[in-house]
Amino acid sequence: MKKVLLATAIASLTAIQSHAGTVTTDGQDIVLSTKGGLSAKTTDGNFAFKIGGRAMLDYNSYDGVMNKAGDTTGSDLFFRRARIEMGGKAYDWSYYFSYNLTGGGSIEEVRTTYEGLGQMAHLTFGQQGESFGLEDTGSSKWFTAIEESMPSNAFDTGNSVGVKLHGANNAITYSLGAYKSAIDSNNDMDTAVTGRFVYRPLNDENGLIHLGVGATHRNGVDARYHALLGVRGGESKTANSISAELDNTTGTRDDYNVELAARFGSFHAMAEYFDGQIDPDSGAGKVKANGYYVQAGYVLTGEQRGYKNATGSFDSIKPHGDLGAWEVFARYDNLDVSDSTGAATIAANKANSWTAGVNWYVNPMVKVALNYVDAKTDQPINGEDNGQAVVGRLQVAF
Amino acid sequence: MKKVLLATAIASLTAIQSHAGTVTTDGQDIVLSTKGGLSAKTTDGNFAFKIGGRAMLDYNSYDGVMNKAGDTTGSDLFFRRARIEMGGKAYDWSYYFSYNLTGGGSIEEVRTTYEGLGQMAHLTFGQQGESFGLEDTGSSKWFTAIEESMPSNAFDTGNSVGVKLHGANNAITYSLGAYKSAIDSNNDMDTAVTGRFVYRPLNDENGLIHLGVGATHRNGVDARYHALLGVRGGESKTANSISAELDNTTGTRDDYNVELAARFGSFHAMAEYFDGQIDPDSGAGKVKANGYYVQAGYVLTGEQRGYKNATGSFDSIKPHGDLGAWEVFARYDNLDVSDSTGAATIAANKANSWTAGVNWYVNPMVKVALNYVDAKTDQPINGEDNGQAVVGRLQVAF
Amino acid sequence: MKKVLLATAIASLTAIQSHAGTVTTDGQDIVLSTKGGLSAKTTDGNFAFKIGGRAMLDYNSYDGVMNKAGDTTGSDLFFRRARIEMGGKAYDWSYYFSYNLTGGGSIEEVRTTYEGLGQMAHLTFGQQGESFGLEDTGSSKWFTAIEESMPSNAFDTGNSVGVKLHGANNAITYSLGAYKSAIDSNNDMDTAVTGRFVYRPLNDENGLIHLGVGATHRNGVDARYHALLGVRGGESKTANSISAELDNTTGTRDDYNVELAARFGSFHAMAEYFDGQIDPDSGAGKVKANGYYVQAGYVLTGEQRGYKNATGSFDSIKPHGDLGAWEVFARYDNLDVSDSTGAATIAANKANSWTAGVNWYVNPMVKVALNYVDAKTDQPINGEDNGQAVVGRLQVAF
Repeated sequence: MKKVLLATAIASLTAIQSHAGTVTTDGQDIVLSTKGGLSAKTTDGNFAFKIGGRAMLDYNSYDGVMNKAGDTTGSDLFFRRARIEMGGKAYDWSYYFSYNLTGGGSIEEVRTTYEGLGQMAHLTFGQQGESFGLEDTGSSKWFTAIEESMPSNAFDTGNSVGVKLHGANNAITYSLGAYKSAIDSNNDMDTAVTGRFVYRPLNDENGLIHLGVGATHRNGVDARYHALLGVRGGESKTANSISAELDNTTGTRDDYNVELAARFGSFHAMAEYFDGQIDPDSGAGKVKANGYYVQAGYVLTGEQRGYKNATGSFDSIKPHGDLGAWEVFARYDNLDVSDSTGAATIAANKANSWTAGVNWYVNPMVKVALNYVDAKTDQPINGEDNGQAVVGRLQVAF
Repeated sequence: MKKVLLATAIASLTAIQSHAGTVTTDGQDIVLSTKGGLSAKTTDGNFAFKIGGRAMLDYNSYDGVMNKAGDTTGSDLFFRRARIEMGGKAYDWSYYFSYNLTGGGSIEEVRTTYEGLGQMAHLTFGQQGESFGLEDTGSSKWFTAIEESMPSNAFDTGNSVGVKLHGANNAITYSLGAYKSAIDSNNDMDTAVTGRFVYRPLNDENGLIHLGVGATHRNGVDARYHALLGVRGGESKTANSISAELDNTTGTRDDYNVELAARFGSFHAMAEYFDGQIDPDSGAGKVKANGYYVQAGYVLTGEQRGYKNATGSFDSIKPHGDLGAWEVFARYDNLDVSDSTGAATIAANKANSWTAGVNWYVNPMVKVALNYVDAKTDQPINGEDNGQAVVGRLQVAF
Repeated sequence: MKKVLLATAIASLTAIQSHAGTVTTDGQDIVLSTKGGLSAKTTDGNFAFKIGGRAMLDYNSYDGVMNKAGDTTGSDLFFRRARIEMGGKAYDWSYYFSYNLTGGGSIEEVRTTYEGLGQMAHLTFGQQGESFGLEDTGSSKWFTAIEESMPSNAFDTGNSVGVKLHGANNAITYSLGAYKSAIDSNNDMDTAVTGRFVYRPLNDENGLIHLGVGATHRNGVDARYHALLGVRGGESKTANSISAELDNTTGTRDDYNVELAARFGSFHAMAEYFDGQIDPDSGAGKVKANGYYVQAGYVLTGEQRGYKNATGSFDSIKPHGDLGAWEVFARYDNLDVSDSTGAATIAANKANSWTAGVNWYVNPMVKVALNYVDAKTDQPINGEDNGQAVVGRLQVAF
């Protein structure tokens, strides 16, 4: 009887194989996975490949000071981001490609990391985030609000081509990098140097406390601080900004920031303060800016906001139940460019905004967000000194 | 004896595995497939991923009224389309990315569909076809002729960013969508609303009869109807068009169409009529156009042209034999913009063309097509009122 | 006892499957592989798919005649190339897509090959390399020096849209193709015809000797020969060139070359001579150029430089040991445009350069290169007639 069972078991295995076709490898065992994208990794950890992408379809409706056309309602429906992403590794080297499909196509990131020195000393080469600011260091997929705060926007270093030394353990995360910022009149590179240090006095099942500081020194950059007033539709073609600028001038820019964040269960909060100034390469005057934001959020369905020690930044919320995860949050932003001197052109000396919203993490691939934004400026732009916006997003990330 | 056989069977299984390497997953079972591209789906139907692409290499040789340079032979060899395409799903949500590699890169489609309401009520968000017209709703990979008809070209809505409700069963296909068409002077969105309804009185092993109607209402669009005269090489830089236009004016456009199609065995036929007019946002006059085409095709090797209920459109021909599938077809096009009034600039009041051709579906990935086009206009353009073209295509789709 | 063992064996197989998830196919057996990218092929050889890419991050530091800004040090850090690449096959047809992510995105290659006539007669359609010159026919991933020689640069045909007949066995490699070179004033295609023939009198375990000749005839092309003086950072915006040009004129260009190469164990050497002239389509004068380079390299760690009969070109070095493969090389370049006549604008009649460098093939995915370049011109450009450069590269290819 047992023999018959065994024979049947083997026969059925064979039958399945002949009907369905087998998948084998040319060497090491592979684990394959799809959650909307596709990944493959060898079980010995030597090789890996992953392909995915993201698309964020945004709707903006906004009026008052947010709309360049004056006190009428502006609106837009557009892709805030759409990218194809690939990553992989061979032994101690990993890589990541992220290509923007919007705006005619551009490189978002192309970088490779040497991991052979261990978790405390990774070396990343290529176009990459500089890791300045808590909000900006996190993935755009998992910002709590649809848009970054005004100070994060104004002090954003963007992605740059360079090299970064970085590392992390449970208690600290650090990064120090040098990047190309411009080419000068001798055809020589101008550089930016950016560093960040994060300390976590608490980081276990009881909760998370995150303290961070960062600084960046940048040569040959535009003499301007600039932030949109909460909406992105149409960018500066249709939406107003708070900004201070020494026109057509480059300068040396020095910015620093302080970060504070915490997570206890489903509650999370974060705040950052930024301060900086730009000394023009020629002519008089300075451009100065400072700002801060404070944000708190709560996941109604009990999940916890993710956090990555490796980057010292918040990450995704993975829904547990069939109805997804639901999160509410509020944020207050403040940005001030009023200390700028000389011939600086200023649109609004000071601005602040309130943002409140709800996020629905439908499944691991889909997120829906709805935000309300109320922004004020200290002086009218085109006759308006306050404005409101409703912003919606449908995000697919795989 | 049996025990030895069993032991041998197991030993040989083990031997194969140790030589070749196994492929497993981190969770649900996966079915992998390659037919030139690559796809993976979990057997529980919850997750899927697919990557592929298409390239169409076209040769055009054309003279007479088709050539802007007058009665000489123009020619071009170019990529009509080259795209990378990715799709996938997670639970009730699917997505599709299609990126144009030609012309410096652009988004062809980035869309996500909520399928949780069943086949009769899908909701698709993002950049997508509007589903106006039978020919235009089908995939460009499986047009019978190399180029769409002149009226399909003139009334093509293109792909737009918006939301579409759509559904289908064996008898009907419908779609209704709202899309961004432009941004007005208040920075507010102009919209287009497009609907289509298809009824199939016959749709079984005896044959297919397809009846359809569609309409689109579009604000803030260019006050122009325009169709190339059969060739695409060099586009409007080198090839003439039939067109009527109120220069530098936008307007409100209202178009409708009627569709009729049938398939009996290897025979298939389709016809469409289009009619529309544009009321300018300022100034006098109207731009009006109407047109139709009639097409019939036959697959000599006995295969049947595919048809998708979900979109109410024709699809691929899958070759059965080693020599591929061979198809012949003929089409008559007519387009008339002569009813346009006011200061409309008109190049050719009326045009018609005959297209005849042969398609060779070499294998599931490769298609070769050769078309002959004979076009006439009611009035000469640059001294010519008729022209002929030979158009060839090599298509790879995976 | 044996029965128990068998039962245990089957039970454990089943257990692994239920924990990890199985991967099967919808038809033929598939072999999957990842070495940083991903490939899948059916075991019957009918279908295949591969996705990968390459990124080359270059640092240039250069002075003297190489720098347009005069005798100061110029520098740049930039992506020399960043591409996503896909390939596959269905029966006798294969395809290859390579898309440049740099410069806003462009097609590097989109081609399909009919392989049904055997190794001696492949037909490749689409945008492809024309196979003119030994160095240029090889992959940019496996050039020995970071940049091609000056004559290879000046006589590079680039990638073109057309059709190429090509084949190879152990002793010979040939190619003959026709390509679109321009569109003339009648909107008719101008063409280029390019051929190459390689003979290998020795090609076995004892060594390799490669003899080759090539020629190209090109209509409607720019009347110019041009080569950068060893560095690419900033291209012609910041770096000087040797060039001769009849301004704003097109012409008919006729170039030929002779190739000589050898490989014995870890030693490899190659040399090419190029000669060409351009007759302008209108006006007097001619643009003429000739040049050569000689290069020798040695792999210190004992590996052999790869060579592909199919293309008649050198290929990658695959490191054997844990420390990777190390290679040293030197090259002498010479380019002369002094025989140009008429109103030709000339920047440097003659130029030569020495390049020496070391390559570290870290693993199958990563290559690091460091080159020193010393270039001289026969007449000063901006007061300088010689210059030096240090060029570094970090390459990821998967």
